[in-house]
Amino acid sequence: MELVEHVARIPLFEGLPREQLHELVNICVDQECRKGKTLFSEGAGATGFYVIVSGKVKVYKLSLEGKEQILHIFGKGEFFGEVPVFAGGRYPAHAETLEPSRVLFFPRDAFMDLIRKEPSLATNMLAILAQRLRQFTHLIEDLSLKEVPGRLAAYLLCLSERNRASDTFDLDITKGQLASLLGTIPETLSRILAKMSQQEFIQVDGRRIQILDRSALESLAAGEKLVS
Amino acid sequence: MELVEHVARIPLFEGLPREQLHELVNICVDQECRKGKTLFSEGAGATGFYVIVSGKVKVYKLSLEGKEQILHIFGKGEFFGEVPVFAGGRYPAHAETLEPSRVLFFPRDAFMDLIRKEPSLATNMLAILAQRLRQFTHLIEDLSLKEVPGRLAAYLLCLSERNRASDTFDLDITKGQLASLLGTIPETLSRILAKMSQQEFIQVDGRRIQILDRSALESLAAGEKLVS
Repeated sequence: MELVEHVARIPLFEGLPREQLHELVNICVDQECRKGKTLFSEGAGATGFYVIVSGKVKVYKLSLEGKEQILHIFGKGEFFGEVPVFAGGRYPAHAETLEPSRVLFFPRDAFMDLIRKEPSLATNMLAILAQRLRQFTHLIEDLSLKEVPGRLAAYLLCLSERNRASDTFDLDITKGQLASLLGTIPETLSRILAKMSQQEFIQVDGRRIQILDRSALESLAAGEKLVS
Repeated sequence: MELVEHVARIPLFEGLPREQLHELVNICVDQECRKGKTLFSEGAGATGFYVIVSGKVKVYKLSLEGKEQILHIFGKGEFFGEVPVFAGGRYPAHAETLEPSRVLFFPRDAFMDLIRKEPSLATNMLAILAQRLRQFTHLIEDLSLKEVPGRLAAYLLCLSERNRASDTFDLDITKGQLASLLGTIPETLSRILAKMSQQEFIQVDGRRIQILDRSALESLAAGEKLVS
């Protein structure tokens, strides 16, 4: 397979015009690596990001005692290191090949020059990422609509208990934190809160929550009911 | 709240340097809209994207018979219309306010000029979107690790049945299509396939699947077992 075909399949670049794909191929460095090669180290300035053509790469941190904690194993067609490259920061972890691998390295300087020369590369990539983000948001919504309302109801009932079984109380954490706690994203949490309000299970005013229908929340928490 | 504070909270712009936030404020148009105002129509050239400061907006399509199908309802702090703006295309649906709303309109031309003048705005936004995409990928993984392996096992067993109960057969759809079918993303599907291979439930070679441990797949499909 030609290099440009590999580049065209990377989610970061999927759907870019052919000329821009070729410009990307021109700046990337095609590397064959032995097993156990360190690609970058935590704390080093991010000089570029990687795409795996074949093989496997582990991204890991080391504890103070030198114990390795693997954050992620990347395989064929996946990319990593792009966040600090775009943001202009340092690598947040170590990366090392787990087997003989072929990787493409996109140097930050050349990538930035390309964007300066051709801003539409950046806006095309923004479009790709924004589109993917939309799809992911919907998927997370689908996946969490099954479980998050129940967990949210349980959380609200527990909070009510802690407030001496009062029907009105304040959320003790931000909505962003609550979303993480429930395993979803703020957008989905907001939509679930809005639906529970529409159905008159609760009333929401900023961080203040009022329970309107305690038995509905109890059924939700027990998994007997769905927020429709 | 000052306009720049609203802009700073939009996920697209979260964490941008202060100067760039102010540049964005300078190009945006602050609009008070009555209920029922059309913000854009399907097929029109995308002249800009919107952020909701207060109120609600429905994004919908019309069927040939004129029946309305709501795709999404956006509320406070959410943005929409950005994909065709970045990509330079047409709006894929209609948008109309559901109640009196205050929205910020970011015109495409001014936004593109800003990026040409200051490419780091684009790369900073790429960093934000890439980071969010990473978080979402992990979350989808967490959410689907509970259910996808079971559904995948059921699918593989069914495929084996269709191939006269043979242990070796080819996937009849691409891995991307299979991921959608199972309600996840290709990255997660690949990782689940890799885990099932490590555990010697199956062997995967491109699209060819060989079942090594049929009873393990049956337990997975019945929800009795987890892929660890």
